[in-house]
Amino acid sequence: VPSLPEPITALTAALSKLPGIGPRSAERIALHIVQSEKLVAENVARALIHAREKISLCDICGGLTERQPCDFCSDPRRDHSLICLVERAVDVFSIEKSGVFRGTYHVLGGKISPLNGVEPEDLRIAELERRCASEGVKEIIIALPSDVEGDATSFYLGKLLSPRGVKMSRIAHGIPVGSGLEFADELTLSRAMEGRRELL
Amino acid sequence: VPSLPEPITALTAALSKLPGIGPRSAERIALHIVQSEKLVAENVARALIHAREKISLCDICGGLTERQPCDFCSDPRRDHSLICLVERAVDVFSIEKSGVFRGTYHVLGGKISPLNGVEPEDLRIAELERRCASEGVKEIIIALPSDVEGDATSFYLGKLLSPRGVKMSRIAHGIPVGSGLEFADELTLSRAMEGRRELL
Repeated sequence: VPSLPEPITALTAALSKLPGIGPRSAERIALHIVQSEKLVAENVARALIHAREKISLCDICGGLTERQPCDFCSDPRRDHSLICLVERAVDVFSIEKSGVFRGTYHVLGGKISPLNGVEPEDLRIAELERRCASEGVKEIIIALPSDVEGDATSFYLGKLLSPRGVKMSRIAHGIPVGSGLEFADELTLSRAMEGRRELL
Repeated sequence: VPSLPEPITALTAALSKLPGIGPRSAERIALHIVQSEKLVAENVARALIHAREKISLCDICGGLTERQPCDFCSDPRRDHSLICLVERAVDVFSIEKSGVFRGTYHVLGGKISPLNGVEPEDLRIAELERRCASEGVKEIIIALPSDVEGDATSFYLGKLLSPRGVKMSRIAHGIPVGSGLEFADELTLSRAMEGRRELL
């Protein structure tokens, strides 16, 4: 049985590896691409390469940025003694949208999860310790998800950094348990920030 | 309010122009791309350009192909006196999957629809007339959708080509009205092929 030409099935395969794109919608996009103006394929290809080349992780906070250090870490109007700790780089922009936070950020890059082979040394914890030592950090607000790994990671960090005189807190519940920061509305995020409690 | 860096929002915008990708899933893909290995972005970009460059429309039938003429039009084992007429290039592969058709294809590129500004001269009708004259075409099976425009287009083609001695038929109902060929299962497509009726 003849099937679609190889360049189309190859494009379908490449697209279906992206998050949220199934084989059916990948094929639909591939067929759209080969039957559209050349510019359509070129624009998407260029945007992919451009984004991947221009965006790196901030050397200080680990957030997504076009320059080193990132806009947050290089902004003198922000409170550099206050750090909001998030799991993923995207989470920074969820917090920013709420407009209630004027400190800086630190992206952990995951949660401690021995079952999944994620140990403390796999996360950006050493970088956080370094910042606490060199930047005069007074307070860390932990905005990790409220699940088992998030709780364990928060507990671990509390035990690690509280003894060094850093005030540690977690954002208040208000964000649905097991749900990610990106699903919370701005008001819920504001409440969660305001209602934070000291960890130890 | 700081938002995501420009290369990410640009990629999100480019992706959300593709069929079936909303702004939310476009952003999710963009964030995945900038945080994945460089190879991920490069593979998708390369597949996009490759597919768009390698795939063209067959000079004879208008189907998607890597070479001129396409595999169907250049296959001596297929019956070149029998043409299956479809609306879109994708439809060829829907018919092929059923395995019941051994003739060649002709892609019309749309349906006559004066309300949408699609006149007969906007479709590949002249090419079909030329094939009837030069290729010894004895029969055309029309596999256009069974909607108003599909009916009007079939009627127009019947009036145009029947007087020239070409046997014209339409695939039988069996495909749900208003639905496209790609949603039909192989059995439904086989039944529709077998139950075709002469047009005029």
